[in-house]
Amino acid sequence: MNNFVYDIQTKVYFGKDQLGNLAPELKKYGKKVLLTYGGGSIKKNGLYQRILDELNKGDFEVFELSGIDPNPRVSSVNQGAQICKKENIDVLLAVGGGSVIDCTKYIGAAAYYDGDAWDIMLKKVDVKKALPLFTVLTLSATGTEMNAAGVISNPETNDKIGLIFPPLRPKVSFLDPTLTYSVSKYQTACGSADILNHIFEVYFNMDDDLYMLDTVMEGLMKTVIKYAPIAYHDGNNYEARANLMWASSWAINGFVAAGKTHEWTCHPIEHELSAYYDITHGLGLAILAPKWLEYSLSDKTVSKYKQFGVNVFNIDESLDDMEIAKLAIEKTKKFLYEDLHLDSTLSDINIDDEKFEIMAKKACNNDKINGFVTLYPKDVVNILNMCK
Amino acid sequence: MNNFVYDIQTKVYFGKDQLGNLAPELKKYGKKVLLTYGGGSIKKNGLYQRILDELNKGDFEVFELSGIDPNPRVSSVNQGAQICKKENIDVLLAVGGGSVIDCTKYIGAAAYYDGDAWDIMLKKVDVKKALPLFTVLTLSATGTEMNAAGVISNPETNDKIGLIFPPLRPKVSFLDPTLTYSVSKYQTACGSADILNHIFEVYFNMDDDLYMLDTVMEGLMKTVIKYAPIAYHDGNNYEARANLMWASSWAINGFVAAGKTHEWTCHPIEHELSAYYDITHGLGLAILAPKWLEYSLSDKTVSKYKQFGVNVFNIDESLDDMEIAKLAIEKTKKFLYEDLHLDSTLSDINIDDEKFEIMAKKACNNDKINGFVTLYPKDVVNILNMCK
Repeated sequence: MNNFVYDIQTKVYFGKDQLGNLAPELKKYGKKVLLTYGGGSIKKNGLYQRILDELNKGDFEVFELSGIDPNPRVSSVNQGAQICKKENIDVLLAVGGGSVIDCTKYIGAAAYYDGDAWDIMLKKVDVKKALPLFTVLTLSATGTEMNAAGVISNPETNDKIGLIFPPLRPKVSFLDPTLTYSVSKYQTACGSADILNHIFEVYFNMDDDLYMLDTVMEGLMKTVIKYAPIAYHDGNNYEARANLMWASSWAINGFVAAGKTHEWTCHPIEHELSAYYDITHGLGLAILAPKWLEYSLSDKTVSKYKQFGVNVFNIDESLDDMEIAKLAIEKTKKFLYEDLHLDSTLSDINIDDEKFEIMAKKACNNDKINGFVTLYPKDVVNILNMCK
Repeated sequence: MNNFVYDIQTKVYFGKDQLGNLAPELKKYGKKVLLTYGGGSIKKNGLYQRILDELNKGDFEVFELSGIDPNPRVSSVNQGAQICKKENIDVLLAVGGGSVIDCTKYIGAAAYYDGDAWDIMLKKVDVKKALPLFTVLTLSATGTEMNAAGVISNPETNDKIGLIFPPLRPKVSFLDPTLTYSVSKYQTACGSADILNHIFEVYFNMDDDLYMLDTVMEGLMKTVIKYAPIAYHDGNNYEARANLMWASSWAINGFVAAGKTHEWTCHPIEHELSAYYDITHGLGLAILAPKWLEYSLSDKTVSKYKQFGVNVFNIDESLDDMEIAKLAIEKTKKFLYEDLHLDSTLSDINIDDEKFEIMAKKACNNDKINGFVTLYPKDVVNILNMCK
């Protein structure tokens, strides 16, 4: 069992109508605010105006960066950083889902760096400080609203890189489940697959870890499996949206991963799919994860699948271990492909095997993935072939 | 479902040999340190010297307050506050269990108040600031190492009062499971009963709350029920001590109670027992809780007991709801009285019914307890009679 440091400082306002706290919190950090958002849906649904109304209550000078894309580009990071430098921005306010927030995290870091922001993703420079970040979340998925991680894409090189730097963790996040009412069925499904996978990546390991954290992860998985289909069918269900929203933060804010050292597996493979084909991250994970679980199942690992099957899906524990494991994978597939209606194969989304080799090598960083089970490029190709 | 603010800022160093981080963290807060501890067991087991060795690595001026009792007295709070004022203490370092830490929390508050510290407990004055507090925990029980609460006794008035003030939350806590190896079987049992009860007080309610938090609480309860007997029999079992230690913090740091508004029930009743008879808090709770659960069981509340029985004790959910509820209470009793060998009645610890009426009135604050089910003084007397 490894030692760990627990240090999650994000303050969260959870629930309806909490934006009245925005201006008082924000002014602790300064007056010049850079407001960032995506394609403008927040203008249509009125959130943009609500935010501006709140900011007008304080003595803020507001600058804007809009048009941040899904799978956010390093070009947006550079653009935002330029505004921060030119206007001496004090604090960042990201309004959107994971892409907007991730992009804004690196804007806050790049504001203190004079070169190309991609240097940060290539680890040529460390991130020792970043501008303070506030978030108003509109999609339950990546958990970025409470963690220190972020993923940035570079379309020129087909790279998509995710890194963790402690200064990137948001200071204050507003989690209002009603802001996710308008999330489409498809994005609700993809977001839920993403949440579930964040837990899979940590839960599925053979380390000697804290049982307590396993029980928390099992609870989070049960929560996603129970409420994602409800939110899918009834987008305005507050209970479902609230449970998904808080579960998404806790799946990946660092709490359940405390003391864990093994690498993640599906995420680096999926990042290659997204980088080459610009697919939705959660969908890529939904296709990959069950095959990864099938590929990793062995006499050595079966005990973890049994624990998962019994505690998350209530499978009868008197059954044979291997039978429980296979049933648990089937139930996972049922959840993803039947309950959430997600595509189950790469051919469903028109991806063939042309780039399997190159993606596998990149996912393994030209070496291997030291995950739940160690995977070499040939293993990754095998898994991708299973996904065809 | 209520809105809530999540704001848990305590940084935790968890694991063995983390004290090397003490001096670097401490010096962020100042040079003059008040070291507080209890009856001196930390001198016998070497912890005191290890702490001093670490403090000697920095340029600290160390003052001491020792002799803080279990069920800590307001006199100790006043004594500590006097030292803080006289010596201009910058930061507090509490080494011990819940009593030492609780006492030190109020020392930090009283350092900014010129009157008797008991005025704080009587809410005559608010706590708007407190000296920064570090803790080194030696007993898994109260969860005070990560929360903003503390309980202080006044033997002159037979009062024992627990209050919550945000400035009291520790800045940094060191949680080293090996420091609890020397905790006796009896104190291990009482501490575990305390942890379980903290979860009971939040879990047992009929509000429309976040399912996700229920699943986390069920996981924490399973953790305590699994590992307390192991720690009881094998005090040096790292896995058991580690799971109990982290579960104790999360049972009551505010996370699982987010959005809940109902009052606690067993704790105010037990505080009367402790105030009048100076018994160990966890033992009092262990005697009270099963009877409280029996007393509160009805057709209106049975669904919560069913959820508890099925998810925590794996009771067959096809059984009749009321049968599941009763089985769950029996399993709780088995855990407390057979697995942990705790006394099960007040007569076992020589408490008769002489003060039942007065204790019931005080527990209800001369009114009622708006808990899981509303209790009036006559109900509290009934529960106490069931405990005879």
